[in-house]
Amino acid sequence: MTSQLSIARTARIARVRAQMELENIDVLALSVGPDLPYLIGYEAMPLERLTMLVLPRVGDARLVVPYLEAPRVDRSAAEFELVTWQETQDPVALVAAMMSSAGRVAIGDHTWARFVLALQGQLPNAEFVPANRVTAPVRMVKSADEVECLQAAASAVDAIAAEMRERPFAGRSEAQISRELRERMLQHGHQQANFAIVATAANAASPHHEPGSRVVADGDLVLCDFGGTMNGYCSDITRMFHVGSIPNQISDAYAVLHQSQDAGVLAGVVGASCESVDQQARAVIEAAGFGEYFVHRTGHGIGTEAHEDPYMVSGNTAPIVAGYAFSVEPGIYVGGEFGMRLEDIVVATADGPLRLNNAPRDIAIVG
Amino acid sequence: MTSQLSIARTARIARVRAQMELENIDVLALSVGPDLPYLIGYEAMPLERLTMLVLPRVGDARLVVPYLEAPRVDRSAAEFELVTWQETQDPVALVAAMMSSAGRVAIGDHTWARFVLALQGQLPNAEFVPANRVTAPVRMVKSADEVECLQAAASAVDAIAAEMRERPFAGRSEAQISRELRERMLQHGHQQANFAIVATAANAASPHHEPGSRVVADGDLVLCDFGGTMNGYCSDITRMFHVGSIPNQISDAYAVLHQSQDAGVLAGVVGASCESVDQQARAVIEAAGFGEYFVHRTGHGIGTEAHEDPYMVSGNTAPIVAGYAFSVEPGIYVGGEFGMRLEDIVVATADGPLRLNNAPRDIAIVG
Repeated sequence: MTSQLSIARTARIARVRAQMELENIDVLALSVGPDLPYLIGYEAMPLERLTMLVLPRVGDARLVVPYLEAPRVDRSAAEFELVTWQETQDPVALVAAMMSSAGRVAIGDHTWARFVLALQGQLPNAEFVPANRVTAPVRMVKSADEVECLQAAASAVDAIAAEMRERPFAGRSEAQISRELRERMLQHGHQQANFAIVATAANAASPHHEPGSRVVADGDLVLCDFGGTMNGYCSDITRMFHVGSIPNQISDAYAVLHQSQDAGVLAGVVGASCESVDQQARAVIEAAGFGEYFVHRTGHGIGTEAHEDPYMVSGNTAPIVAGYAFSVEPGIYVGGEFGMRLEDIVVATADGPLRLNNAPRDIAIVG
Repeated sequence: MTSQLSIARTARIARVRAQMELENIDVLALSVGPDLPYLIGYEAMPLERLTMLVLPRVGDARLVVPYLEAPRVDRSAAEFELVTWQETQDPVALVAAMMSSAGRVAIGDHTWARFVLALQGQLPNAEFVPANRVTAPVRMVKSADEVECLQAAASAVDAIAAEMRERPFAGRSEAQISRELRERMLQHGHQQANFAIVATAANAASPHHEPGSRVVADGDLVLCDFGGTMNGYCSDITRMFHVGSIPNQISDAYAVLHQSQDAGVLAGVVGASCESVDQQARAVIEAAGFGEYFVHRTGHGIGTEAHEDPYMVSGNTAPIVAGYAFSVEPGIYVGGEFGMRLEDIVVATADGPLRLNNAPRDIAIVG
């Protein structure tokens, strides 16, 4: 297992270095965020002590970590040399010295501004560009092993979505149901619950509603959008619930949404443009007269990061490649009235789009 | 409540603007991270869609948010004007246009590198400095309301630390106990569990050990260091547990640690230097011959962020001010054998250091 992982990482690093060659980048500098674990299996703690991988296009990579975090690093990893700094040392100076001859530095997208500015101050002649340019082309294409991890995470949230159909909703607050979703994600093998949106009635007209004290009542439509991280890969699913029988206005709009989501999924074929997924899903909603209520893009890539390239959005004319994994999640949001969204994770394959989520897609009637 | 909060925020913004005057900063630009909610009560989602507060030293503040997240913003807030951007717009261009005349921009410490670089590209004549320079002096000094929030969060984790004394440890993995700690933090009113280190036996020699599959056995010493966020303020506590009777080697070392922690807490008096807390705690451990095993600073500030200024570390000669809240957490880490740490949150007051954590500090004997 370790050696397979090590082989996968070595291959990833080789592919990133090929991108560095194309982009004329001398050094890749990675700190917090998903690029680092993707390449070396180690995640920087998102704290004030700097962790940074310094990966030159040619030559040996070095991982700079706080001394007290050194024991967390797997020293058997062959991909880098470990360099530690003590509490009273300046880690930025240490890193800057390692790339003093670099003309062009790609720096991890999520690196904290304070470290970017400090590095720029110590390397006034270097040009800094976002690491995304060299890591995204590699990360977007998922291997069979990665798809397996995404499938496992998807199946776990599918199971939760199915369980929730039997759970009571009325009388509980959004925050309580959200907490239950977070707890269930941990119980179902996720290392971490990343988010659990529970939005009732008119609150769901806000796509990223923060679950609050509103108590679910009879007749409420409830949106649940939740996801976490399992074995390093993310889940993300949205399903709808209704307390008691569903009014025609809701079921009619939902039929349109369901059809839109199907159209978006079917558009996710290798060679089609990323934006065509958005166009196909949107066309169905527009044709039904709900166009103005679909206020966001149709999807985002997913992998070790909950949202990553490619984005299924108007303007992204890049072609879909086999191994791309992304959400298809159209929504209809009518301010002051209701909101609904339906979301699955899809992988583009040579045989067509493959849905990783398979929990029932109808609106569940709950108590 | 809302109007009191609003008054508090208005006062905070005025204090930050006074710092901007001192530092000759024209615009404060805040995105993800704790500065933004501290000043306006709104937290940016840590995603790829840019949220940014543009706060000029003089003039009206504007909060730039993705259109789909606009409903999350409390529009009654008087502190800023809301500006939204659509999915196909460039939010960086929008923000850059708002500060085109700025000579010196303070940018939020946690802002993603990709946005820092994009803003620099669009504002080539502006000088960027970390926002910390103007926000830290304000955030470090906690008001009575803030101390109350920190106390509530501390009491919640105190209760969990006490409950854990009655729980079985042997036969369960570090990861399982860690998950229990996370669940209990949610049950005890935390909105979010930030971390839950559970490190057994020699694993605890790694101060930031990642809880894993190791199963607790009879005779194990177990370190539990956990914290989360409750009403916007952080908790952070470390307590030790031992399965079965405690060997003399452990109880002797722990007596030193306990004494060291007391010394660190007692040093946290108004007017003393921040580094004196570290010096006093370290002196006890060094005198006992364990100096080489105490491999990190003694403490960190805490508030809306789990780790923030001031740091209780050698070299920080700044004086302690009434209202500073910080951890005192010396440790002894013997590689291959054991690790131990004892941590409370302390507030510096005119009447001396006040411990917010009061769970029993002895090593709990568990089954």
